[in-house]
Amino acid sequence: MALVEFQRHIMSTPARGRILLSVTGFNPQRWYDLLSKKRDVVLEPAGAEDPSIDYAVVWKQQPGILSRLPNLKVIFSIGAGVDHIFTGDPPPDVPIVRVIADNLTQYMCEYVCWRVLDHHRQGIHYRTQQARKVWRDAQQPPANEVSVGIMGLGELGRHAARALLALGFKVNGWSRGVRTMDGVSTFHGAEGMTPFLNATDILVVLLPLTPATEGIIDHSVLSRLRQDGPLGGPCLINAGRGRLQREADILRALEDGTLKEASLDVFEREPLAPESPLWPHPRVFVTPHAAAVSDPAHLAAPMLRQMEAFERGEALENLVDPKVGY
Amino acid sequence: MALVEFQRHIMSTPARGRILLSVTGFNPQRWYDLLSKKRDVVLEPAGAEDPSIDYAVVWKQQPGILSRLPNLKVIFSIGAGVDHIFTGDPPPDVPIVRVIADNLTQYMCEYVCWRVLDHHRQGIHYRTQQARKVWRDAQQPPANEVSVGIMGLGELGRHAARALLALGFKVNGWSRGVRTMDGVSTFHGAEGMTPFLNATDILVVLLPLTPATEGIIDHSVLSRLRQDGPLGGPCLINAGRGRLQREADILRALEDGTLKEASLDVFEREPLAPESPLWPHPRVFVTPHAAAVSDPAHLAAPMLRQMEAFERGEALENLVDPKVGY
Repeated sequence: MALVEFQRHIMSTPARGRILLSVTGFNPQRWYDLLSKKRDVVLEPAGAEDPSIDYAVVWKQQPGILSRLPNLKVIFSIGAGVDHIFTGDPPPDVPIVRVIADNLTQYMCEYVCWRVLDHHRQGIHYRTQQARKVWRDAQQPPANEVSVGIMGLGELGRHAARALLALGFKVNGWSRGVRTMDGVSTFHGAEGMTPFLNATDILVVLLPLTPATEGIIDHSVLSRLRQDGPLGGPCLINAGRGRLQREADILRALEDGTLKEASLDVFEREPLAPESPLWPHPRVFVTPHAAAVSDPAHLAAPMLRQMEAFERGEALENLVDPKVGY
Repeated sequence: MALVEFQRHIMSTPARGRILLSVTGFNPQRWYDLLSKKRDVVLEPAGAEDPSIDYAVVWKQQPGILSRLPNLKVIFSIGAGVDHIFTGDPPPDVPIVRVIADNLTQYMCEYVCWRVLDHHRQGIHYRTQQARKVWRDAQQPPANEVSVGIMGLGELGRHAARALLALGFKVNGWSRGVRTMDGVSTFHGAEGMTPFLNATDILVVLLPLTPATEGIIDHSVLSRLRQDGPLGGPCLINAGRGRLQREADILRALEDGTLKEASLDVFEREPLAPESPLWPHPRVFVTPHAAAVSDPAHLAAPMLRQMEAFERGEALENLVDPKVGY
């Protein structure tokens, strides 16, 4: 074999780490098919103790499986959130990569703008009027008199903020640490929370779920939202994680006049139980964790590219800090 | 009186034409108050034959009143549409100015984005699921796979197109004459209609009402919308004028599978009659001509500024061409 040919052979069949695929809650077939185009994929429950497995691609993986891969080098989370990886046993001490796909960001941005506009333009009010055949227009503030407050200024939050600014809304942002953004009034940390909430008419929750954020959306937070704003009461949109919210508090806030309306895509327990009073509530809009569904057609290729980059010795992108959990 | 004082006197009390205010369908009190801050305002039915009246500010004015103002110089329409001025007797041969306020454009843009997102993100589907407590996500195309087609590329249509592009949608535009716009696939005239419709999943109607456009949204137009698009059927949004649409055709298209859903803000006859089958239709969203309500707080000042500019001999802006009716 001539040298050039040999090099070509080496380049076309590099030593490639195998992938363990472990998901619960949905059918992994499309992920399996797409990842298999480039690498060997082992579908859990197979794969335990397999020394040829370098990568785990997971969504709510089986408990303990990650610790039983002797040569595991990187964990890839399907989805932007990674709290599922930290649930139960701590994961092994290897890099954890989150999915950040344009597509996921795009979906989330659509969902946030859709829900903000539906609260702002009084969708619930007009649908109720239609059911009663009532022809009467409501007082309608323009977007530039309405403040949308985004909790969480990561990739998803910043993209949503830009889209809301383009639609004409005033935008506030709150994050754990200091973050700034053109056109957005930013607040941070515990001391920034009350001024942020006081200036917000529509609260959009895009926080990661960590021990520090679990249950953060409680009655105390809702009661600090602007009560005399132009919409006749504040509205809540949660497209982050269900366990960020206390659903009993949301229901109480809706009943006692603290909260006007809510759009909830995520819930403390999913699927939402049939007996939940959120389902029939006339001022709550429920979607089944559908704001931004991870689409393997858009996510598998960037994941495979990261594996190749890692094997060339390049840095991984979108790494999770295990100390803060996102 | 010293010369400087005299000049100051002249400048603070210029000879100002009086205004006739003639509206039907809503209470003109706020318009009266705002216009009165700068000029004498005569509220119709007073004012006929009054030679001191230079301007008419009208919305569905009393028939014949405009012809009875001997010194009428300019007609100002409240609202972007002017078809109401041409209904009944022809107006006198003076310039007609349309209202084009940022605020009106902003409201319309919000309404269009709101309705496009609700059809795109399957609001009707999810609200129906919620009523049945069904937890199941639907196939969801991203915005960049959905084509929104805007009929009418005037100020409102162009602004809406820009906002939809920013949200990630593909945008087509159709207009009577040639118009181009960055990022928008534009079509024009009778020969452009079919290719425009064939490439459109969500049709947004923002046309003026003229003899050439009356009844244009009929079954033939609806049946040329893209039938195999990503939303499972085309959707219609009419935020222009009610008499652009044939409601019997829309209902037939909804029933025979030609049209998936519709958002209608305007109707052939307003208010929409209680017996209209549009009210209870499960795939129609009805609002009471509320997409963009003319707010005198934002419109009266630009109108007064135009009167002042006119008196200084400057050109009027946003003139209507009476030959085409907009």
